[in-house]
Amino acid sequence: TYLPAADGFEVAGARGLLLSMAICMFIGVVFRAIGRKHRGGHLFQKEAMAVVGLSWVLATVLGALPFYLSGTQISEGSPITFIEAMFESQSGFSTTGATVLTDLESPGLVPHCILFWRSWTHFLGGLGIVVLFVAILGQGSAGKAMMRAEMPGPTKEGSMPRMQATALAFAAIYVGLNIILTITYVLEGMTCFDGLCHAFGTMATGGFSTYNASHGQFTSSLIDYTTIGFMILAGSNFTLLYLTLLDGPKRLFRDVEFRTFIGIIAVVTAGVVVFGMRSGDAGFATFSDSLRNGMFQVVSVLTTTGYGTADFDRWNNFGRGILLLLMFVGGCAGSTGGGMKVIRHILFYKILRQEIEKSHRPRVIRRLRIGGMTIDDPNLAHGIVVYFAMILAIFVVSWFLLVTFEPSSTWGVAEAETAGSVESSGDPTKQLIRKNTLDEKLLDSASAVAATLNNIGPGLGVVGPTKNYAGFSQGAKLLFVWLMMLGRVEVYSVLVLIFPTFWRRI
Amino acid sequence: TYLPAADGFEVAGARGLLLSMAICMFIGVVFRAIGRKHRGGHLFQKEAMAVVGLSWVLATVLGALPFYLSGTQISEGSPITFIEAMFESQSGFSTTGATVLTDLESPGLVPHCILFWRSWTHFLGGLGIVVLFVAILGQGSAGKAMMRAEMPGPTKEGSMPRMQATALAFAAIYVGLNIILTITYVLEGMTCFDGLCHAFGTMATGGFSTYNASHGQFTSSLIDYTTIGFMILAGSNFTLLYLTLLDGPKRLFRDVEFRTFIGIIAVVTAGVVVFGMRSGDAGFATFSDSLRNGMFQVVSVLTTTGYGTADFDRWNNFGRGILLLLMFVGGCAGSTGGGMKVIRHILFYKILRQEIEKSHRPRVIRRLRIGGMTIDDPNLAHGIVVYFAMILAIFVVSWFLLVTFEPSSTWGVAEAETAGSVESSGDPTKQLIRKNTLDEKLLDSASAVAATLNNIGPGLGVVGPTKNYAGFSQGAKLLFVWLMMLGRVEVYSVLVLIFPTFWRRI
Ligand SMILES: [K+]
Ligand SMILES: [K+]
Repeated sequence: TYLPAADGFEVAGARGLLLSMAICMFIGVVFRAIGRKHRGGHLFQKEAMAVVGLSWVLATVLGALPFYLSGTQISEGSPITFIEAMFESQSGFSTTGATVLTDLESPGLVPHCILFWRSWTHFLGGLGIVVLFVAILGQGSAGKAMMRAEMPGPTKEGSMPRMQATALAFAAIYVGLNIILTITYVLEGMTCFDGLCHAFGTMATGGFSTYNASHGQFTSSLIDYTTIGFMILAGSNFTLLYLTLLDGPKRLFRDVEFRTFIGIIAVVTAGVVVFGMRSGDAGFATFSDSLRNGMFQVVSVLTTTGYGTADFDRWNNFGRGILLLLMFVGGCAGSTGGGMKVIRHILFYKILRQEIEKSHRPRVIRRLRIGGMTIDDPNLAHGIVVYFAMILAIFVVSWFLLVTFEPSSTWGVAEAETAGSVESSGDPTKQLIRKNTLDEKLLDSASAVAATLNNIGPGLGVVGPTKNYAGFSQGAKLLFVWLMMLGRVEVYSVLVLIFPTFWRRI
Repeated sequence: TYLPAADGFEVAGARGLLLSMAICMFIGVVFRAIGRKHRGGHLFQKEAMAVVGLSWVLATVLGALPFYLSGTQISEGSPITFIEAMFESQSGFSTTGATVLTDLESPGLVPHCILFWRSWTHFLGGLGIVVLFVAILGQGSAGKAMMRAEMPGPTKEGSMPRMQATALAFAAIYVGLNIILTITYVLEGMTCFDGLCHAFGTMATGGFSTYNASHGQFTSSLIDYTTIGFMILAGSNFTLLYLTLLDGPKRLFRDVEFRTFIGIIAVVTAGVVVFGMRSGDAGFATFSDSLRNGMFQVVSVLTTTGYGTADFDRWNNFGRGILLLLMFVGGCAGSTGGGMKVIRHILFYKILRQEIEKSHRPRVIRRLRIGGMTIDDPNLAHGIVVYFAMILAIFVVSWFLLVTFEPSSTWGVAEAETAGSVESSGDPTKQLIRKNTLDEKLLDSASAVAATLNNIGPGLGVVGPTKNYAGFSQGAKLLFVWLMMLGRVEVYSVLVLIFPTFWRRI
């Protein structure tokens, strides 16, 4: 798809990239000089959190430079704004894969080198997650509790060299899987460029494609099932993959989270196939098509990859409803996937069951057990439930902001057409359009928040699998940048940055 | 509105009522005989929960008899089914006020004595809440923690005579307010019948009316503001009302929950007025109309009364969105209102803020403080968050059941018109109808679950303020019966009944 006519534009793209590199290096040198005299100090928890949070903000801004400086256009005649460039950069690093670019295939709008940079942010984001969050910082409270008993690698008190060894091993697995997948893709018929970009998008559970039709561009069932397999790997715990490499595959199914993860895929795919065939949805004509399309979309949403080979927004309501719910499940802890993670849902279910039991048997003390192992950390249950509460609160507040302030024009309807006066106008068509727009606003806003907060990408309606985020107002895009960041660092490290007591006496 | 032509039908209604009374008495005599030899025993927690849960189930079934035996029709030619009768009875006792009766004003469909019975179930339900849940059982964990410090009345260890005295005092306040409101209504121009029924509906935060236009039938601004005032009283903590009677009104605003409750009404009403006038919604032509209509609907939904004087489903999205959220707030603990209660939201907010602070200041131990008082119960925070989690889980599961199994005919559209094949038919009008129906299904189902689980009554779309629950399938109606019960007894006492370990060695 490389057209000579766009040569000048490619040069502008390359210039933008080089300029961005220069700016980054300059900032790096300055920071290094500032930090020189503090070498060897010890980081306290608060400072570590500030470093994680602020680094992410800095990465978003610097990652936006190539888009902004290359003259990329979100559509014919609309050069990308800096907020939109930040959206694209955040979406890449956080491996969300939501985009504001409406046409990826016009070399006059988005240069190829920028397309590559876009996919490369996925690779970097995924690598950062695997090395920083999984290998070095542990995997959040739920993951930590799981790891402590099983893991030969780092624990909270892990020594420096051991941490470095684990980080290296995890990075090697991640890079290795990217290479294997790229080669497989090329053998299955992709170009080298497409193979690399889609391998990055898959292994990071990112979802940026190089085509407007996303993964649907490749109509090969071989490629589809390859991607399904590698999305499942990318959504699995890297600690578990590492242990499986050492001990063999019997290890995999001894892990309760992995078993549940696979179980969800199997059950939901079965449901989607049954309801899809019954309703006669597009892509569900034969059983083999239904299985392929159903499983692809289910795995893509559950692992929070967000690649699409079918427009699930046009499915029946069982399919749409269950995919909306799956968005909040997410991959396994310690994977590159986003979302709330399977293990948290397992624990959430066990905690609720325990609470109901406690209410009528107050004297029976039961410990939380998972995978045959007792969890003694008394704060774990509280932590899990508080995490659900946080996600709920963020979801509700963001949804309400969008519903209140996002103009109707985002839904392709003039503001006047949704005014109250239309109600009393007596024109039934106008009334239907108003009602439909207002309803879509409530629903699509909810799905857009879910899709960005859980780092998935596509949602329902105006942000459906064949749509994009270009139509939203700049304010909404900024909100999404924030939500993608919150989702990726699992809330706390970023949320504290806006908390006034955090900055007091830092 | 009493028509002589319906005389025979009124007789059938009275016969149904008398027959129901006979059945109830017979069951009462049988149970009394069975229980005679167990007199004077002690109830354990488990048995107390079983008594509360099973009594509620029994009350629902017995309360359904008058509707079923009187030949009531939900619409011309559709006699009420027993599930629908249970829906109406549960809706009355739980003070939800959702109805399956499509025409209350045809004396050939619903006899007047049945209309009165329907409102009377509100009165009984409200009395039961005030006496049983508030005065005797305390007010759930949040309310209990509040009461312990303030309250001259019952505590967990309250003595029998003291409990009885408090129960009597609360019942007297409740009955007294009902009488005062009835007299006020009659002085303001209602008939005795309407005055009684609407007083019951208001003080119990029930919402059953005797008119199809609900409270909108009375176009008097005097009656509207009277109802607003008494809804606020009904949504307030009866313990606080009792203390105010003893100590004077300065007591009211020293209570943090009451202050927040009034604050929410003020802020949300202001928002609804501003957005309603800006959008030009029906009923927002002048400022005085906007204030009256806005405040009425806000107070009605917040206190979970559910009376309507305007169709908020046709408002702009700020209004629709905020009312949907208010449904989950509810009245004050210890009121006749449903929902999750204001105090739980205050505590929820404080807990989340505390958790964020804890994440970067792990060594600073802070106690939860509310209204200048420290809460020492370590289980309180956990209990609140788990309660939110329960409501969330029940909401999500119920929503998903409706979305999956409720036929499109509930939305007035044939099943075939929402099939996937419509998508590929190429007819844009058909496609719009399909998309609109599927979206409405997702949205209306959510609002129907919210409106029944929180004991409000009306929701959005197909269950909007001018609609009713008649169109739903029998299965959905049974689900709503269950949700109204769950909401009213605040989840635990009923949820445990379906829990297998509950029945083991009871
Ligand atoms: K993604
Ligand atoms: K109600």
